Amino acid sequence: MNQQYPSVLLEKAVGEFSKLPGIGRKTALRLVLHLLRQESGTVEAFGNSIMTLKREVKYCRVCHNISDTDTCQICANPARDATTICVVENIRDVMVVEATQQFRGLYHVLGGIISPMDGIGPGDLQIESLVQRVAKGDIKEVILALSTTMEGDTTNFYIYRKLEKLGVKLTVLARGVSIGDELEYTDEVTLGRSIVNRTLFTGTV
Amino acid sequence: MNQQYPSVLLEKAVGEFSKLPGIGRKTALRLVLHLLRQESGTVEAFGNSIMTLKREVKYCRVCHNISDTDTCQICANPARDATTICVVENIRDVMVVEATQQFRGLYHVLGGIISPMDGIGPGDLQIESLVQRVAKGDIKEVILALSTTMEGDTTNFYIYRKLEKLGVKLTVLARGVSIGDELEYTDEVTLGRSIVNRTLFTGTV
Repeated sequence: MNQQYPSVLLEKAVGEFSKLPGIGRKTALRLVLHLLRQESGTVEAFGNSIMTLKREVKYCRVCHNISDTDTCQICANPARDATTICVVENIRDVMVVEATQQFRGLYHVLGGIISPMDGIGPGDLQIESLVQRVAKGDIKEVILALSTTMEGDTTNFYIYRKLEKLGVKLTVLARGVSIGDELEYTDEVTLGRSIVNRTLFTGTV
Repeated sequence: MNQQYPSVLLEKAVGEFSKLPGIGRKTALRLVLHLLRQESGTVEAFGNSIMTLKREVKYCRVCHNISDTDTCQICANPARDATTICVVENIRDVMVVEATQQFRGLYHVLGGIISPMDGIGPGDLQIESLVQRVAKGDIKEVILALSTTMEGDTTNFYIYRKLEKLGVKLTVLARGVSIGDELEYTDEVTLGRSIVNRTLFTGTV
């Protein structure tokens, strides 16, 4: 449907919203008209929130996580285990791992994974700064928590080759059957791997 | 999942985005992080587009459609049939009717429909200004193009009572089986109405 917008300003706003991932022109129009019905202050708060974030956001100089300060809350927290680093792809992955409350170490945000198809090479990622962090000698273990895809495996291997001479313990996340999954619907590769890597049962999992 | 945001600014932006209809906190985070990866100029253009729209938008003083000028393009167009008014609920409905290219008259945007459940009464809508437009005497037909819901029917009836003494022709959109629909899946009320209001077949529909 080729729609004529009754206002150039409206068309412009809809155009901007429809650039967002997963937002088509129809949804964009719905969102813009929703905002238009709100008070001026609400719309200003909306627009300013994203512009302020973009202007003032910092990235932790240690782990490259998003932060309001030069060093992020996690890196600055003395209660965290500074000898373990969990390597993740992006900021969202830090939040996901934090939400599990199972990890008390520090992070290292790569800012992506090696993906030749998308033109992303090792030089575009925060791998060199990871090597430097490890080279300082205080790190005992590096946990590679990247996606279990070909790109993730490639990046894991690249980091492995960079770190192997430094004598640090390198681990990856356990792969196996998801909790709550039925065996019937688990893919063969995952199931095969989980048989090979079976763990001792001591009455509780 | 109770997520901790690594930055107050990030949390604020996510909070603003998640106020939009149909956008949850997860989607909001995805959208905000997408914008954060863009150039500063892109983010400024995004934020300013909606704030400029809110600040500078006008509503046509005749039909209350959104407009960049005091009188909208449709009302100002001498080629349009100024004796027919199509009454719609909102701006989006104007765009939908325009997209059909089947209507050459003018519009009247009510700004909603009578809905006691949502606390919207006739006084909250542009009904009085519709009566004034019709009372001027140049209008021959008013087409009521509201939703085919109870609220739509209530509003239709209210407008009918307001306009009946003015001697204007009042019509509603034809109701019947949607084009492309199979009879089997058409609801009884619609099907029943379409039998009662059947039209003469002259070789083509």
